[in-house]
Amino acid sequence: MNSTRLILSMDTGIDDALALAYLSTFNDIDVLGVIGTYGNVSVGTAVRNTAYVLGLLGMGDVPVLRGSNGPSWADWFIPDAGCAQFHGTDGLGGFGPGTDERPAATCHDGCPAIEAGGLTVSVGGYTVDDPHANPAYPVDSVRGRETDDRLSPGVRFIIDQVRRYGHDVTVVATGPLTDVDAAFTAAPDIAPLLRLVMMGGTLTQEGNCWDLTAETNIIQDPEAADRVFHSGADITMVGLDVTHQCLIGTAATRSWREAATSRPACASDETSLPRPETLRFLADIADFSIAANLRADARLFSSGMPLHDPLAVAVALDQMLVSCIDLPMKVETESGDFHGTRGRTIGDPEGLIDPQAPRVHVALHVDAARFVGEFTARIGGMLG
Amino acid sequence: MNSTRLILSMDTGIDDALALAYLSTFNDIDVLGVIGTYGNVSVGTAVRNTAYVLGLLGMGDVPVLRGSNGPSWADWFIPDAGCAQFHGTDGLGGFGPGTDERPAATCHDGCPAIEAGGLTVSVGGYTVDDPHANPAYPVDSVRGRETDDRLSPGVRFIIDQVRRYGHDVTVVATGPLTDVDAAFTAAPDIAPLLRLVMMGGTLTQEGNCWDLTAETNIIQDPEAADRVFHSGADITMVGLDVTHQCLIGTAATRSWREAATSRPACASDETSLPRPETLRFLADIADFSIAANLRADARLFSSGMPLHDPLAVAVALDQMLVSCIDLPMKVETESGDFHGTRGRTIGDPEGLIDPQAPRVHVALHVDAARFVGEFTARIGGMLG
Repeated sequence: MNSTRLILSMDTGIDDALALAYLSTFNDIDVLGVIGTYGNVSVGTAVRNTAYVLGLLGMGDVPVLRGSNGPSWADWFIPDAGCAQFHGTDGLGGFGPGTDERPAATCHDGCPAIEAGGLTVSVGGYTVDDPHANPAYPVDSVRGRETDDRLSPGVRFIIDQVRRYGHDVTVVATGPLTDVDAAFTAAPDIAPLLRLVMMGGTLTQEGNCWDLTAETNIIQDPEAADRVFHSGADITMVGLDVTHQCLIGTAATRSWREAATSRPACASDETSLPRPETLRFLADIADFSIAANLRADARLFSSGMPLHDPLAVAVALDQMLVSCIDLPMKVETESGDFHGTRGRTIGDPEGLIDPQAPRVHVALHVDAARFVGEFTARIGGMLG
Repeated sequence: MNSTRLILSMDTGIDDALALAYLSTFNDIDVLGVIGTYGNVSVGTAVRNTAYVLGLLGMGDVPVLRGSNGPSWADWFIPDAGCAQFHGTDGLGGFGPGTDERPAATCHDGCPAIEAGGLTVSVGGYTVDDPHANPAYPVDSVRGRETDDRLSPGVRFIIDQVRRYGHDVTVVATGPLTDVDAAFTAAPDIAPLLRLVMMGGTLTQEGNCWDLTAETNIIQDPEAADRVFHSGADITMVGLDVTHQCLIGTAATRSWREAATSRPACASDETSLPRPETLRFLADIADFSIAANLRADARLFSSGMPLHDPLAVAVALDQMLVSCIDLPMKVETESGDFHGTRGRTIGDPEGLIDPQAPRVHVALHVDAARFVGEFTARIGGMLG
C-alpha cells in the first residue's frame, strides 16, 4: 500500500510547498520528479515556485517538469482571485521568488500568438462569462492561445515513469487532474498500472468553491477528473472530508520559528540540511495561510489552516493514516436540472448497477492527531 | 437496536403502502398508529390512502391520525407533478380510494378561508415562483390558508407516545420530517428520548429532485429536516445511498399475482389474513411504480422500482440490514454562493470542530439481496 517512489503534480501554492517540506524530512523516499502545473497559480509560476522551494529544502537535485497550461476544456487559464486570497498572488504568500507574469492573462513562452476571439477562457475553473469568474481579469486581456497540442514534459514524464515502475511509483496530484488525464489520453496502457493519491474533491462535506458544492482542484477541470475517476487506476481521494480535520495553527509555526532561532545559521551551512531561513520561510507561508483561512471562516478554521496537500503526501507514504469507502465516483460536468452541479464529486449511480464499475478509495476518516503531530514535529525538526 | 413498537409518519403513496404491507407480515410488531402527512399527496389523501391500505391488509384496527398540512416554511402546500408521475395523482397509481380534492390547490376541511395575497405556496417543496414549481398549479387557485397553529392529532400522538415509551418506540418517517419537527418544537423534552428511522436524503449518491442534489422528502421541508438532524434524537437516515440498491421488478409482482390466483378468494375470507385482491392491489401499484421508474431512468431502474419506504421500515425492525457512517449532518436551506443548494443533505462542518455535535447514523451499505428477497417472499406469502 505504501510507496517510497513518488512523482508529484503540483500547482505550487502554500500547502503544496508544505507538502514538499514534509516529504523532505524522510530519508528513504525517492522523489523521481515534481511537475509544476496550473491551478492555484499559472503553470509558469508553479514551476518557478516548485524549483525555489525544492532548493530551500536541499532537494535541488529533484527534476522539476513543466505540466499543463490549463484545463482540458479551456483554451486559456487565468488564476482566480480566490486562490490568490489563500496563497497570495505569487502562490507563496508574498514570500516566493515572485512572478514575472502580468497580473492578468499571460502568454507563456512558446505559446503561438493567435486572436482572442472565440477562445474559451477559464478563470480559476469557471468560464470568464460565468458569474463565478473573477471580474478582475477581463477577457480582453487574453492575447494568445494557451493550449499546446504537444505533450508537456510533465505529462510525458508520468507516462514514462509509470510504464517503467507500475505500482512501484505513486503519483501524488495536489492540483487539478489535467496532467494525469492527459497522460491517460496519450497512453491508455498506463491507467491500470497507476497508483494515484489525489488531493481534491469532497463527498461528505461541503465544497470550498463559491456554491459550496465543488472543491477547488476539481472545479478547475471537472472533465479531466471525471475521466480519471473512470480510468480504472488505483485512486485514493484525499478530499475535504479529511483535510478539513487536519489543521495547524500559530502554535506550530511559533515552534518552527523557535527551532530556527535556536539553531545558528552557520550550523547547517556545513551539511546538506536546510538552513534556518528555510524554516522561517515555512512559518511565514503557513502564517499567511492561517490568517487567510481565519478571515474566510473564523469558526471552521479557528484552529488554523487545513493541511490539504501535506495529507495527500502523507497518505501516499502511509495509507493507514486514513480509512476509506470504496465507491464508484463521478464528477458532474454540467449544472442544472438533471445534471447536478458542475464540479461536484459524488457516487456514480452506474456503480449501483454494475458491480465491476471502477471504485475510488474515498478517505472519510483520518487519524488527524497523529498526522498533525507528526507533521508539526518533522518540520520543526528538519534542521537536525 | 431493533424495535417491536412503531409509529409511522407517511405521505402514503405507493412505496409507503408497500412498507405497510411488509409490516403486516410480522406477527410480533405493535403498530401504535400511522400518521398521514402531506408529501407525495395532500394530507387528506394521505390519511384516506393510509386507512384504505391498512383495511386491505387486515390492519383496520390500527389508529390513523392526521399529520401536517404542509411544510413548516409555507402557508400552503400543493402536491407536485413529479410525485404524481411516480405515485399517480391519487398516490396509489390509480388503484386507491380516489380523492375528492380538486386537482389544483385544495382547502381542506377546517381551514379558515383567507385571502391568497401574501401566502407562501409550496408546490412539492418549491415555492410557486421557483422554476422547479409545477406550472400546472397556478397560485391563483389558492383560496385559503393551509396552516393551523393547533397541533395536528398526529404530532400530538408522537409527543404522547414518545413520552410514554421513550426508546421503546421507533418513529418511522417516510415523508417530510414536518411532523417530527413540530413534535420537537412543541415538546423539546422528547428529542433525547426519540429513536427515528427516516427515509430521506442522500449523502454519497445524487438526489432525485430536479437538480439531482436534493432528495424528495427533504426538499419539501429542508428547515424541518435540518432542525431534526440537530435535535439530538437517535436518527438513522435511510437515503438514496441504500434505497437505490434495493429494487424489485415485474418478476416479483408476477409471483404475487400467481400467489393470489392459486388461492381461492373464499379461502381467506374465513380468517384474518388479507384476501387475494389485496395481493393483486399490491402488484398493481408496484407495477405502476416499476413502469414509472423505468420511464424516468431506463438504466438505473432497469431492475425495477426502489423500495425506499419498505427499507426504512425494515431497518427499524432490523438495524443490521444496513451499515452506517455516524456523521453530524446538516440540510442546506438556501441556494447560491456560500450557501450550497437548498435541500442538500451533507456533513455539518460543525462536526469537524465540535466532537459533541449530534451525529446521524447515515446508512451507506445495505444487504440488498437479503432484504429484497425477504420483502418479495413475505408479500408473496401474506395469504398464508
